[in-house]
Amino acid sequence: MKPQAKHGTTPQNELERLGISPGDRITVTTPKGKLEGLLMPRAGEERPEILVLKLDNGYNAGIDANGAVIEKRPQHAKAELQKTKKGSFLSGEKQGTASTLPKIALIATGGTIASRVDYKLGGVQPMLSPEEIFFNAPEIARIASFEKISRPFTIWSENMAPQQWAAIAEQTAKELNDGADGVIITHGTDTLHYTAAALSFMLKNLDRPVALVGAQRSPDRGSFDGSMNLACAAQYIVNSQAAEVAIVMHATSNDDYCHAIRGTKARKMHSSRRDAFRPINDKPLAKIWPDGRFEKIQAARPASSKETRGKVEADGRFEAKTTIIKAFPHTTQEILDYLIEKKYRGIVVESTGLGHAPTFTIDKKHSWLPSLKQAADQGIVVAFAPQTIYGRLSPFVYDAGRMLKKLGVVHCQDMLAETAYVKLGCLLGRTRDQEEVKRLMLQNIAGEISSRLSFEDYLD
Amino acid sequence: MKPQAKHGTTPQNELERLGISPGDRITVTTPKGKLEGLLMPRAGEERPEILVLKLDNGYNAGIDANGAVIEKRPQHAKAELQKTKKGSFLSGEKQGTASTLPKIALIATGGTIASRVDYKLGGVQPMLSPEEIFFNAPEIARIASFEKISRPFTIWSENMAPQQWAAIAEQTAKELNDGADGVIITHGTDTLHYTAAALSFMLKNLDRPVALVGAQRSPDRGSFDGSMNLACAAQYIVNSQAAEVAIVMHATSNDDYCHAIRGTKARKMHSSRRDAFRPINDKPLAKIWPDGRFEKIQAARPASSKETRGKVEADGRFEAKTTIIKAFPHTTQEILDYLIEKKYRGIVVESTGLGHAPTFTIDKKHSWLPSLKQAADQGIVVAFAPQTIYGRLSPFVYDAGRMLKKLGVVHCQDMLAETAYVKLGCLLGRTRDQEEVKRLMLQNIAGEISSRLSFEDYLD
Repeated sequence: MKPQAKHGTTPQNELERLGISPGDRITVTTPKGKLEGLLMPRAGEERPEILVLKLDNGYNAGIDANGAVIEKRPQHAKAELQKTKKGSFLSGEKQGTASTLPKIALIATGGTIASRVDYKLGGVQPMLSPEEIFFNAPEIARIASFEKISRPFTIWSENMAPQQWAAIAEQTAKELNDGADGVIITHGTDTLHYTAAALSFMLKNLDRPVALVGAQRSPDRGSFDGSMNLACAAQYIVNSQAAEVAIVMHATSNDDYCHAIRGTKARKMHSSRRDAFRPINDKPLAKIWPDGRFEKIQAARPASSKETRGKVEADGRFEAKTTIIKAFPHTTQEILDYLIEKKYRGIVVESTGLGHAPTFTIDKKHSWLPSLKQAADQGIVVAFAPQTIYGRLSPFVYDAGRMLKKLGVVHCQDMLAETAYVKLGCLLGRTRDQEEVKRLMLQNIAGEISSRLSFEDYLD
Repeated sequence: MKPQAKHGTTPQNELERLGISPGDRITVTTPKGKLEGLLMPRAGEERPEILVLKLDNGYNAGIDANGAVIEKRPQHAKAELQKTKKGSFLSGEKQGTASTLPKIALIATGGTIASRVDYKLGGVQPMLSPEEIFFNAPEIARIASFEKISRPFTIWSENMAPQQWAAIAEQTAKELNDGADGVIITHGTDTLHYTAAALSFMLKNLDRPVALVGAQRSPDRGSFDGSMNLACAAQYIVNSQAAEVAIVMHATSNDDYCHAIRGTKARKMHSSRRDAFRPINDKPLAKIWPDGRFEKIQAARPASSKETRGKVEADGRFEAKTTIIKAFPHTTQEILDYLIEKKYRGIVVESTGLGHAPTFTIDKKHSWLPSLKQAADQGIVVAFAPQTIYGRLSPFVYDAGRMLKKLGVVHCQDMLAETAYVKLGCLLGRTRDQEEVKRLMLQNIAGEISSRLSFEDYLD
């Protein structure tokens, strides 16, 4: 006999009666057909008769379940999630017995990876709780034990600021000092690389892997990349033995493998592709498959063994009077003068070619030289980074470079402008000694300067 | 009997006696050995005994020719240069009989391609005359007739400004209206792509090809790329039948072929590689070999036949109060407020992700929304372009995008920020109608907006 819907009951009552909660595998049978998938958490209070299922093809489906027959299926996914420590990933508290799996602490900060589609508002909205992330990536519970989940704040990454970097650094240090084998930070992708650079400089004595992970597609889509990225991030923690902050995201546009990219050498290079993050003037640290296959590509700073781990410290100080400007035709020196007047202490310039800015114009109005002289006199650190993104600066080839260098400009080798900005803000937050800051800008602290550029690292 | 050096004569006297001038092929025999190559023009008055030869391997060699035996060799290169019109490329004046080769006008503006290494100063210096370019690329005289050479100014491209763009546009229009089949502009590479975009918008009714060309390596080096780039640029004029402004530069790091890249879709992506220029969100127009092989990759605006050519016009107006700023973590709205106060009329924002800027921060201090509201109220056009460089903006996916759009922000699709800046300045130079400018920013005028992005156009 076919199961039938109880008359007069609502889908929510029915779920309750059957003991079904989010993460359970269910079937929903309506006159239009039968759908099977994982029950997703509800997005809000409105229209409770709409159930959202994650189908096996990855897509989410919203179904009007009024009058539908709901059945519970064997709970593979949920069972996997809770196998290691019942409920632990949901409560953020230790429960049950200890797991032998590596321990990963998860810090959730918002972004698409921690979002859901609001079918009412027609856009992507933040998840109600960070634990929902696991409903999209149940397989990661097989890789590690997620005992600690924290969410210091929930913001889209375009709204991230240095105070949030400091908060994430603090929380990361705390988790590591509490015994985590590594930390995964979920984050929006817009500024993921800035945060990765910030953690690279803010975490002192880092002796374990830290992975930043995001998603380019929302969880309701079949092309959702967050689950594979999360799995690969977990594999990075478990397998890399690297004491490095890395971004772990799709390496190609297929769901095949991820790259772990050094946090100071990564840049978001595409607005929508899943393989948007690219190593710049560097190779990836590793190629990582979600099933645990791991291919080291270059040497990373080695992680400590469990026995020799020390105390990780977070130094979240950041000089607010740091900024980035761009050199381009007709950039008057006006903005530079304004920053000098406003007593900025650090200015990163996305400079042209091998590290240039206007040193002369035919109307003699817009040379940067007088302003740069004034900046130097006031102790402002001006750091040039390549506007070309790829390649290294070289101030000795042309007169312009030599003139700029004489005025105290620091040519930051092959450092990304975004990384140079983060590094400069961190250094200026720690000391008022301008010469020391200039010296440290050219000293490789967290892999931000490549000793040599390999020819094949361009674009690909 | 071996030739012997005349005692008491200087190398310069000896050159004069033998009727040797720059561009001639000579041998110089010293006790250390014998060198053969093209005599290069002298860099200055000092140390006249040093002769500079361009060797057949491409390298320049400086030789102390005191007491050396100098001999003139058959003048292949010079002969080729002057075959079509004796001396015409040197004087810039019409001389001799008419050539049947296509006519290319050359506009020289400075840059590495028009430079020489000053062995005394130890750096790269501008050539003394634009005709020297031909000594580095004698083979182009076989491709076309270069009757007109002009040099409106000589500046390195980091010092280029919109008034120079206007001057180049004027000169280009003049050459075309005087009957040139196309124009080649030699230019420094730092801002070559800005100028390419500017000419794309400033030249009206363009009905013939215009090629911008530069060099990433100076002419004294074996890896000098300027000669092949010039040859390919000439082939672009002769073979493309495209009424488009294109950058023609090395497509790979080998001396095999060049790409012609649409002027509004090109970006310098590497500080030093010869294949630094890349098409962004676009395919190249064509693959071009210096020997004339030509492979069209995508459709270009077709050139007019000789009979139907019209009048090309230059509109060099550019609104000086236009600039570019970048959205990044902790960009306060301060710079934006400053630009509003300074009555800027156009602001391009290198926005994050799909077209975002801070709309909220936890300390509630640095949202851009109030400033953008004020900008809109004052009739300032704010145009967002992708900071990721690759990919397209899409303001409807997230709340931030929708909020920004509501405040009148123009999301410039897949347009490069550099191109958006040039386009915005041009449009604002022509009208004070803000709504018209916003409308035109989203209308494809010179190939700056791709109707669809092809998957394989990312990075490679």
